[in-house]
Amino acid sequence: MLDVCLLGTGGMMPLPGRWLSSVLVRFQGRLLLLDCGEGTQISQKAVGWGFKALGAICLSHYHADHVAGLPGMLLMVGNSGRTEPLTIFGPPGLGRVVAGLRTIAPELPYSVSCVEPAPGQVVECQGLQLSALPLDHALPCLAYALEAPRARPFLPERAQALSVPVQLWSRLQRGEAVEWAGRRVAPDEVLGPPRPGLRLVYATDTRPTPELPAFVGGADLFVCEATYGDPADMPKAVERKHMTFAEAAHLARAGQARQVWLTHFSPALEEPQRYLDQAQAIFPNTVLGYDHLQTSLRFAQT
Amino acid sequence: MLDVCLLGTGGMMPLPGRWLSSVLVRFQGRLLLLDCGEGTQISQKAVGWGFKALGAICLSHYHADHVAGLPGMLLMVGNSGRTEPLTIFGPPGLGRVVAGLRTIAPELPYSVSCVEPAPGQVVECQGLQLSALPLDHALPCLAYALEAPRARPFLPERAQALSVPVQLWSRLQRGEAVEWAGRRVAPDEVLGPPRPGLRLVYATDTRPTPELPAFVGGADLFVCEATYGDPADMPKAVERKHMTFAEAAHLARAGQARQVWLTHFSPALEEPQRYLDQAQAIFPNTVLGYDHLQTSLRFAQT
Repeated sequence: MLDVCLLGTGGMMPLPGRWLSSVLVRFQGRLLLLDCGEGTQISQKAVGWGFKALGAICLSHYHADHVAGLPGMLLMVGNSGRTEPLTIFGPPGLGRVVAGLRTIAPELPYSVSCVEPAPGQVVECQGLQLSALPLDHALPCLAYALEAPRARPFLPERAQALSVPVQLWSRLQRGEAVEWAGRRVAPDEVLGPPRPGLRLVYATDTRPTPELPAFVGGADLFVCEATYGDPADMPKAVERKHMTFAEAAHLARAGQARQVWLTHFSPALEEPQRYLDQAQAIFPNTVLGYDHLQTSLRFAQT
Repeated sequence: MLDVCLLGTGGMMPLPGRWLSSVLVRFQGRLLLLDCGEGTQISQKAVGWGFKALGAICLSHYHADHVAGLPGMLLMVGNSGRTEPLTIFGPPGLGRVVAGLRTIAPELPYSVSCVEPAPGQVVECQGLQLSALPLDHALPCLAYALEAPRARPFLPERAQALSVPVQLWSRLQRGEAVEWAGRRVAPDEVLGPPRPGLRLVYATDTRPTPELPAFVGGADLFVCEATYGDPADMPKAVERKHMTFAEAAHLARAGQARQVWLTHFSPALEEPQRYLDQAQAIFPNTVLGYDHLQTSLRFAQT
């Protein structure tokens, strides 16, 4: 199960009543944060998932509305009692940004490492498989995919047919070969075909790119920027390298997402619900993000 | 008239429902901010005094809860259309802190200068006279006094007795000598004795110091940290270099303030009103600060 919570849905500047875009992810008791603008720690406090389990922060880019909350967040995680390392991911320039912001958070009770993920690279992170895709924004910017792997199904009837003692089954389930009484059974003999994991994709701030649909890749949940609702704002979207609701919906459709949550609304967009219909006409499973919208993604029953 | 608004009253970390300690000051249409922790811009937005007129930010010290909101604030002031210079005041180390935080706010449509005020120095700032006093905290820390000067009273009966033409009175009021028809009158001949201005003093984070009462100096309003309410927390106050409600009230009394507003409450202090009586027993004009508490200080009628 992969728990996902929108900590905020605003872009450009935090507002009374709308925190800046950020996503908190919980998997097997561990937390991962996507973006950390000013005030993100306050929104996270209100959600109640705690701070001590936060082991990774993925920054899309270094505009202040996505990163200014970093020093306060690092200090809060320290106050919560964390001593295990924490990793920060981000596009090129990460070390300089983190060093600059840590001018006011120089001492922490845990180590911080900075990783600039290469395109195509898959990094193990908080039990999830993380990968990144360069986007098209005014600054270097990354989309992130997080995948919760799922084990192949164990087929007890095959294990019984091979007379594997029951006490050895768990090792086979974990993918280890077992031997007993001169016999040997490999996992492939008792495991079914690979099953898809859970896929969460987060993309902000960007224009649509040719690579994005494949990166969305049938995501169980696609959290996508949709800065402008009104189609008349398309020139602004192009100029400022953002997307409209319709563009986000087209991306979700092209990427065969199961659902898309729209986020990163312009401060001028006071009533995003006015434009939801237009997005749903393109991609029916479009959901309007709001602060503290949550879901738990679960493996399919098959 | 000097307008004063508490933008927040919390210490250490921002909380849902309590912004970090910060004071917004408005004088003759210009704004000055005392401290700028994470979220201060959101609280300021809610107050509605705008951002464009913000010409000075005074930082007490460089703990994140007093300074982490700086890059977002600088960007917000830029978005508001300001092109006039802005000055940041702070204790030694200011340039390094501002440079570090501006890693994510490198380009602004106005110039920023950094000033480390020397003790005893009086700096003209936003029409006010600013001075600073070193405090006793874990890091170098400054209290600030802001004084709105008041003109000497103009005595029309004297001007009449000297036969000064009415059209020259305003120049005398401004302190200029005037000449007409071979005669000369100096301002001293038509102005009454100097009158005290309005004095606002802000002191956080600190232990009480021997110099503080004189610096409070009969302030019309003294905004003072009072991190702990319960007298049993005195060992914490000493260890962490903060004050209790009672200590803040003693300071206000010793400094002959007209009133004191308590602020910078510990996150653990959920009900500060429980300890107000104890402070008022020491200094009756003690007011419990809360987010967006406002007043307008006015010159006395005399």
